[in-house]
Amino acid sequence: MPELRKDPISGSWVIFSPERKIRPLFYQPAGEDTLLPENCPFCEGNEPMTPGEIYAVRHDQAEANKPGWQLRVVPNKFPALQVEGELNKRGEGFYDKMNGIGAHEVVIETSSHTNDVDNLEIEQVTHIFRAHKKRILDLQRDKRFKYIQVFKNHKAMAGATISHSHSQIVALPVIPPAIKEKINRAETHFNAKERCIFCDIIDHERVFQKRVLFENNDYIVMSPYAPRLPFELVIYPRGHSASFENTGDAALESLANIFRDTIARINKVLERPAYNLILNNSPFDFEKESNYKKCFHWHIELVPVITGTGGFELGTNSYINSTLPEEAVEILRVASGGPADVSRAKLLEKFDQNFL
Amino acid sequence: MPELRKDPISGSWVIFSPERKIRPLFYQPAGEDTLLPENCPFCEGNEPMTPGEIYAVRHDQAEANKPGWQLRVVPNKFPALQVEGELNKRGEGFYDKMNGIGAHEVVIETSSHTNDVDNLEIEQVTHIFRAHKKRILDLQRDKRFKYIQVFKNHKAMAGATISHSHSQIVALPVIPPAIKEKINRAETHFNAKERCIFCDIIDHERVFQKRVLFENNDYIVMSPYAPRLPFELVIYPRGHSASFENTGDAALESLANIFRDTIARINKVLERPAYNLILNNSPFDFEKESNYKKCFHWHIELVPVITGTGGFELGTNSYINSTLPEEAVEILRVASGGPADVSRAKLLEKFDQNFL
Repeated sequence: MPELRKDPISGSWVIFSPERKIRPLFYQPAGEDTLLPENCPFCEGNEPMTPGEIYAVRHDQAEANKPGWQLRVVPNKFPALQVEGELNKRGEGFYDKMNGIGAHEVVIETSSHTNDVDNLEIEQVTHIFRAHKKRILDLQRDKRFKYIQVFKNHKAMAGATISHSHSQIVALPVIPPAIKEKINRAETHFNAKERCIFCDIIDHERVFQKRVLFENNDYIVMSPYAPRLPFELVIYPRGHSASFENTGDAALESLANIFRDTIARINKVLERPAYNLILNNSPFDFEKESNYKKCFHWHIELVPVITGTGGFELGTNSYINSTLPEEAVEILRVASGGPADVSRAKLLEKFDQNFL
Repeated sequence: MPELRKDPISGSWVIFSPERKIRPLFYQPAGEDTLLPENCPFCEGNEPMTPGEIYAVRHDQAEANKPGWQLRVVPNKFPALQVEGELNKRGEGFYDKMNGIGAHEVVIETSSHTNDVDNLEIEQVTHIFRAHKKRILDLQRDKRFKYIQVFKNHKAMAGATISHSHSQIVALPVIPPAIKEKINRAETHFNAKERCIFCDIIDHERVFQKRVLFENNDYIVMSPYAPRLPFELVIYPRGHSASFENTGDAALESLANIFRDTIARINKVLERPAYNLILNNSPFDFEKESNYKKCFHWHIELVPVITGTGGFELGTNSYINSTLPEEAVEILRVASGGPADVSRAKLLEKFDQNFL
C-alpha cells in the first residue's frame, strides 16, 4: 500500500509508492526511451500490455482493449496511489501519515508512436482535453479525493519515461500546500476587491500586451509576469471559470486550437523541446465550493524544459530565469505562422546570436 | 541589471538574469561537460579565466590569482545577481519588482579537475566548509542581504554545467517564501512547546534509529521522515545551533569527516550519482534574530538526483518517491565501510534485484 507522509518542517506531503521502483527505465531518466513501437505499451496492437481501459474513443464497432481506437485512458501500471482502501489518517511519533489512497491514470493521446501534438488533427487534440474533463467528472464523485492534478511530461528532460505521447491524471486525498497557497492569495484578493485576481491579470495583460502571445474568442495565451523557467506560458479562459470540467464542447475545440498553435510555435523556436503541461484547477472541497467558484480561475501552465534546475531551486523553491517573459513572447510572436513567419535563421539574425 | 519579480499567485520571487544566457553550455544541460582540464576555468593554471579571487587557501608565498592554491572563491562569471546598486523596490501595474541586487560566488573546491569529495583529504574538505563560513560572515555585513543560500550541484542531472568540483553562494535581498514557511513552522512549534522542532526530531530519531545512518560526537546523518527524493539525507549538528557560521574549527573538521563518509556511501550504493547539497541556515533579519536563534537549527540537505521530476512536482510542489527512507538508510548502512562492508553484488542479493 502506498503511503502519504507529511514533512513537519515544510508542511508538504510526499507520496511513497514502492511499486514505482520496478517501472521501466527506473533510475535511468536522463535519456529518451529506446522503445520500438512493437514494444511500446501505448501503441495500437499492444493493448494487452496495459491494464484494461477506463475510457476510450473508438471507431464504430471496435471492441474495448483491442485495436481500433483514437485515445485510451488506462490505470497507470505503476501507480503512485491506489484506489482501494481507507485513508486511515494517523500519527507516527509526532509525524503525520495516511494511506496512499487515490487514482493514477494515463491518457494515451494517440495510437501512433511518433505523433506529437502539433501534427495531430484538431479533432484528436479535442479528444485529449475531453478525456481529461470526463475523467475529472468521474473521479470527483469519490469523496475521498480533494484535488485532481492533470499533467503531461513530454520527453525525458521533462520527466517522461515513455516517449509515446501521453498525459497523466493523479487524484489526491489532500490539497497540496502549494495549491492551497495559490488559493489563499486568490481568496485574499477577492475578499479585498470582490474581483477574481486572474481576471484582473488578464485585463491588465490585454491592455499592456507585451506578455500576450495571442488569443482567440475563448482563450488567451500569455507569459506570467514572473515565469519560473524560460518561455513558460499560461493559457487562461478569457471569461471567468473556476472549473475546467465545466468547459463545453465548442470551447474544448477552441482550447485544442490555441494549444496546438502554441505547441507548434514552441517547437519551432526551441527545436521541439521537452515540456510540461500542468492543469491548475479548482479543488473539490464542497464546503468551500461557492468561494472557489468566485475566486479561482482554471488555467494551463505550459513549461518548456530547456535548462536544468539544481540545489538553489530545490532549497529555496525560487528560480533563476535567464529570459525575461517579454523577450520570450516577442521571439514566439516573430516565429508565428502566416505572413510574419520567419525561419530559425532569421530569428538568430534578429535576436542575439548567443540567445537561441 | 538583473531584476527580481514576484509572482502574484504563488508569492514566489523569480530572479531574472539575462547575463546567464551566454554562460557555457546554455540550453544544453542534459549531458556532462566535455571540458578538458586545459580549458576548464576552475583548474590550476587557468586562473585568468575567472574573475579575481575573493578568498583563497594558498601555499606559502603563492600569489593571488596564480597557481599554488588549494581552494578559491571567485565571483560567478555569469552572476544571477549583481552587487552594485540600490534595491529600488517598486510596483509595475499591480506587480512587484526590485533590482537584482545580491552576490553570486563560486567556491572552487579543489585545484584538480577530477577530484570528487570522497577522494579529498579531510583537511581539504574542511577548507570547503570553512570557505562557506568565511564568505557568509563577510556577506552578512551587507545589510541589503536577507538570506544566503549555499548549495552545490554535482553532475549535470543535478544542474551542474561544469564538472570540476565546486559549490555556489547566492546572497539574496529577500527571504524566499519556502524558507519563511519552514521558519514559521519552527516558530509555531517553539511558541507552543518552548523547544526547537529540529532538536525534537533529532531526539525522536535517535530513539527510533530506523532513519539514522550514523553519527559522530558533533553531527548526525539521517533521512527525513518524508524525503522528497530517493536516498535524500540530512546532516544536523547534534547540539542546538541556529547559524552555520558560528561553527568552530574543530566542529568544521568533524563535519568534513561525516560529510565525506556520507558521500562515499552514496557513491558506492548509487554508483556516483548526481547530487545536490543545500545548506539550510538562519536568515539575517536582525530584528528577529533572537527568535531565530531559539527556533531554527541549521542543517545540510544532501539529495542524490537519480530520478527525474516532471509536471506533477512542478505543479504541486509535492513529490512521488519510490523509496521509503527506512529502506534507503538500511541499504546505505549495509554498504558501510569496515567489518560490515559489502559489495554492490551482495547488496543486490540482499535487496530486491529490481531495486538498485
